[in-house]
Amino acid sequence: MLKTPTIVLNVKTYAEATAEKVIDIAKIMDKISEETGVSMAICVQATDIYRCVEEVSIPVWAEHIDPVKPGSHTGWTLPEAVKEAGATGTLINHSEHRLKLADIDACLSRARELSFDQIICTNNVATSKAAAALKPDFVAVEPPELIGGDISVTTADPDIVSNSVKAVQNIDSSVKVLCGAGVKNGKDVAKAIELGAEGVLLASGVVKAADKEKVVRDLASGI
Amino acid sequence: MLKTPTIVLNVKTYAEATAEKVIDIAKIMDKISEETGVSMAICVQATDIYRCVEEVSIPVWAEHIDPVKPGSHTGWTLPEAVKEAGATGTLINHSEHRLKLADIDACLSRARELSFDQIICTNNVATSKAAAALKPDFVAVEPPELIGGDISVTTADPDIVSNSVKAVQNIDSSVKVLCGAGVKNGKDVAKAIELGAEGVLLASGVVKAADKEKVVRDLASGI
Amino acid sequence: MLKTPTIVLNVKTYAEATAEKVIDIAKIMDKISEETGVSMAICVQATDIYRCVEEVSIPVWAEHIDPVKPGSHTGWTLPEAVKEAGATGTLINHSEHRLKLADIDACLSRARELSFDQIICTNNVATSKAAAALKPDFVAVEPPELIGGDISVTTADPDIVSNSVKAVQNIDSSVKVLCGAGVKNGKDVAKAIELGAEGVLLASGVVKAADKEKVVRDLASGI
Amino acid sequence: MLKTPTIVLNVKTYAEATAEKVIDIAKIMDKISEETGVSMAICVQATDIYRCVEEVSIPVWAEHIDPVKPGSHTGWTLPEAVKEAGATGTLINHSEHRLKLADIDACLSRARELSFDQIICTNNVATSKAAAALKPDFVAVEPPELIGGDISVTTADPDIVSNSVKAVQNIDSSVKVLCGAGVKNGKDVAKAIELGAEGVLLASGVVKAADKEKVVRDLASGI
Repeated sequence: MLKTPTIVLNVKTYAEATAEKVIDIAKIMDKISEETGVSMAICVQATDIYRCVEEVSIPVWAEHIDPVKPGSHTGWTLPEAVKEAGATGTLINHSEHRLKLADIDACLSRARELSFDQIICTNNVATSKAAAALKPDFVAVEPPELIGGDISVTTADPDIVSNSVKAVQNIDSSVKVLCGAGVKNGKDVAKAIELGAEGVLLASGVVKAADKEKVVRDLASGI
Repeated sequence: MLKTPTIVLNVKTYAEATAEKVIDIAKIMDKISEETGVSMAICVQATDIYRCVEEVSIPVWAEHIDPVKPGSHTGWTLPEAVKEAGATGTLINHSEHRLKLADIDACLSRARELSFDQIICTNNVATSKAAAALKPDFVAVEPPELIGGDISVTTADPDIVSNSVKAVQNIDSSVKVLCGAGVKNGKDVAKAIELGAEGVLLASGVVKAADKEKVVRDLASGI
Repeated sequence: MLKTPTIVLNVKTYAEATAEKVIDIAKIMDKISEETGVSMAICVQATDIYRCVEEVSIPVWAEHIDPVKPGSHTGWTLPEAVKEAGATGTLINHSEHRLKLADIDACLSRARELSFDQIICTNNVATSKAAAALKPDFVAVEPPELIGGDISVTTADPDIVSNSVKAVQNIDSSVKVLCGAGVKNGKDVAKAIELGAEGVLLASGVVKAADKEKVVRDLASGI
Repeated sequence: MLKTPTIVLNVKTYAEATAEKVIDIAKIMDKISEETGVSMAICVQATDIYRCVEEVSIPVWAEHIDPVKPGSHTGWTLPEAVKEAGATGTLINHSEHRLKLADIDACLSRARELSFDQIICTNNVATSKAAAALKPDFVAVEPPELIGGDISVTTADPDIVSNSVKAVQNIDSSVKVLCGAGVKNGKDVAKAIELGAEGVLLASGVVKAADKEKVVRDLASGI
C-alpha cells in the first residue's frame, strides 16, 4: 500500500496535464519523491496511464474506475484495463464523479480483487464516516465548495479535517484520512498532518502552477 | 418515530396500487393495524400521497425524495411538497432508485429538517454499515436478487439479516434494522424479528396478492 | 390537443407554487383564461396534480414523467399515476430534468398511449430539430443560460426562436414550437408569436411575481 | 472521413480485447483491410488507444467521449485526451452508454472541433431520425434486444434497417447509416448493404470468435 504520509496528485482533465504534459508532471514528482523520500502518487486520465507508467517509478493511479467486470460495457472504465495499463490504485467517488453508494461498494470490491490501493473521496464528516465503514485504504475529505479555490481546506475549515479523522478512527482505525481542496504549499501539507491526516490530495495547485517543480518541492517540504 | 416492530409496505408503481387502488390497500392496513395494534406504514407514489393521507390514520410515506430545496428543479420530488401532501416519512436509496452517497446524506438532512422518519435501503452488509454511519432512523437491507421473488430473504439468506443487524449495531446502536425481499407471510415476519430486525419492508407480497386483507392479517400475526 | 397560441406555466418546485399555493396560481390562470379566451396550461408537481385538477378547468399537466410502465419502479413518476390524478399532458426533457435520447422517445410513446399532450424541451436549434424528428405535439426551445433570468429569450436571442421555428418546420410541419426563458410580460409573448412560435413556456415570471394576477393578465394581452 | 462501405468493430470491455489482446485484434483487421481494400475501423477502450495507434494503420476510435472541455472533470473521457492518444473518431450514445439528448449534441460539437469521425448509435427508427437531425457522419441503428445475440439484425429485423435508411435520408441525405446487433459473417454484411446501410457496427461476433482472422476475412467478403 501507498506509504504514508503521502502527497497524491489528481491531474483531472486539465489541458496542462494531458498526454505528453502529464508525463512531464509525473517525471517531476518522480524526481522529487526520489530526492526527498516523500511518498507520492499521481492519478491520470485513462488514456495516459500506460505512457506514464513507462516513464516513472512513483505509483500511477486511475482517476476513476467503473463498477463493471469484463464484458459488454462500451466506453466505461474497466478496472482490468486500468490494471493492465499499469495503474496500482484508484480514486473512487471523486467530487466531480460521484457514485451511488452501492457502486462505491462495488468499485471497492473490484479494486480489492485487483490489489489496487483505493481512496474514497467524500464531501463532509458524515460521508467520511460512511465511506470508512466500507473499509477502503484511504478516505479523502474535500469540501466541494473549496475545490479549485485559493484557500486550503486546512485554513478555511480545519475542523472538517480533524473531525473527519476522529470520526473515521471511531468507525475503523485502519482507514487513513487524507484531505484536499485548495491545498497549494508545504505549509498546507504540514497543517494537514498536524490535524491528523496522513497526507493530501490535490490538483490545480500543481497542475496550474507556472513552476510545477518548485510547487512539488515545496509540498514535499511539508512532510 | 414509527413504532417498532413494524411492517412497512412500499407499493412501488404497481398498477394494483395506483390512485383509488392504493387507497383501498391503505385502508386495509389501517383497519388491521387498528385491530391488531401492529405498527404499519405505507409508502405510496407522490401523486397519491394527499389522497391516502385523507383516508387513513397509519403513517403515509413517500417512496423517494430528491435532495433539493425549493427552487428551480422541474419534475423532481421536493421534500416540502411531499410533506405538505401529508407524508411523515420517506424511503431513501431504494434498490430501484439508487442514489449517490452525497445525495443519500443530503436527502437525510432534508428529511431531518422536515421531521420525516427515514429508512435508508441497502443491498448488503457493507452498505448497511455505511448507511448506519449516517445515522438514519432505519436501515432496510434487501438483497436485490431476491426482490420481487418467491423466497423470503429470511429463508434464502438469513445471515445477511443477522449480520446486518450486528454490523449496524456496532456502528450506531440507535439505528434500527428492517429487512426485505420476498417477504410474504407472518412466518417471514416472525423470522425477521428472530434474526434481530425490527420489522420488514415489503411490496409485491401484498400488492400482488389476490386477497390483500388476508395477507396483511397474516403478516401482522408474525409480530 | 392544447389550443394555440398558448401560455404554458411550469411552476417547478418553487415554494411559492407548492400545495395550496399552486392551487391559487392555477385558479388565477383559470379565471383569466376564461375571461380572455386565451389558451393556458399549468404544469405542477406530481404531489399537487390531483388537487389542482379538482379546482380548475384549464389543463393541468405533469412537469415530468419517467419512461416506465406499471411495475417495480420505486419512487419514479409513473405516467398512469399522473393520468389517474387528472393530468392531460406533460413536459418531457426540461432543461432541469434532461433525459437520454432513447428515454425521450420512450416517454413520448408512453405519453401517446395515454393521450397526453406533450412538449419536448430543448436547448438550441440542433436539439429542437432532433426533438421534432420524434414528432411530439410541441417543441419548447429554452436557452439554459437565459432560464430564470431577467431578459426574455425573445429579446436576448430572437434568432434562436425564429431559427428553431424554421428548422422544426423543415423536419415536420405538424410540430408546433414554443419558446421560453426569461419570458415575463405581454410584449414578450407578442414577440414570441411574431417570431413564429405558437406560444410561450414560462415559470419564475409568474411564480415569483408579487401580483401574479396582473402578470398573467399582461401575458394574455400579448396574444 | 471513414471510407464506406465499412466494417466498424467495437471491442467494448471484453477481456478478450483488453491491453495486448486488443492490439492483436487491431493487427488482424489492419492486415485484412490492407489485403482486401475493405474499409475498417476499431473502437477501443481509452486505456488502449495509444498502444493500438502505434501498431496499426486502420483508424482507431474511442468507444465514447464525454461532453466536456479541458478542466475539472475527474475521471471523465476528455475528447482532447482521446485525440492526443491518436484516435480519429468516436462512437456516441452506444446502447450501453446512453446519453442525454443535449449531451449527444455537445459530444458531436466537441467531436467536430477535433475533426473526429462520429457515429451516433440509436435503438430504433424514431431515434435514428432524431440523431440524423443532428447531422453526424453516421447513425448506427442497433435494436438493444438483439445486441450480443446469435441472430443478425439483418435477419431478425431487416425492416428496422431499411426503414432507418429511408427515415435518415428523408431528414438529411448526407448522413450515412450503419446497422448492428448480432452481425457475425459476410452474409450479414452483404445483407446490410443490400438493405441500404453503408456497413456494419459489430462487437462479440469478432471479439468472442475462436478464429478472429477467419471471421474478419469472412466479414470483409460481404463487401
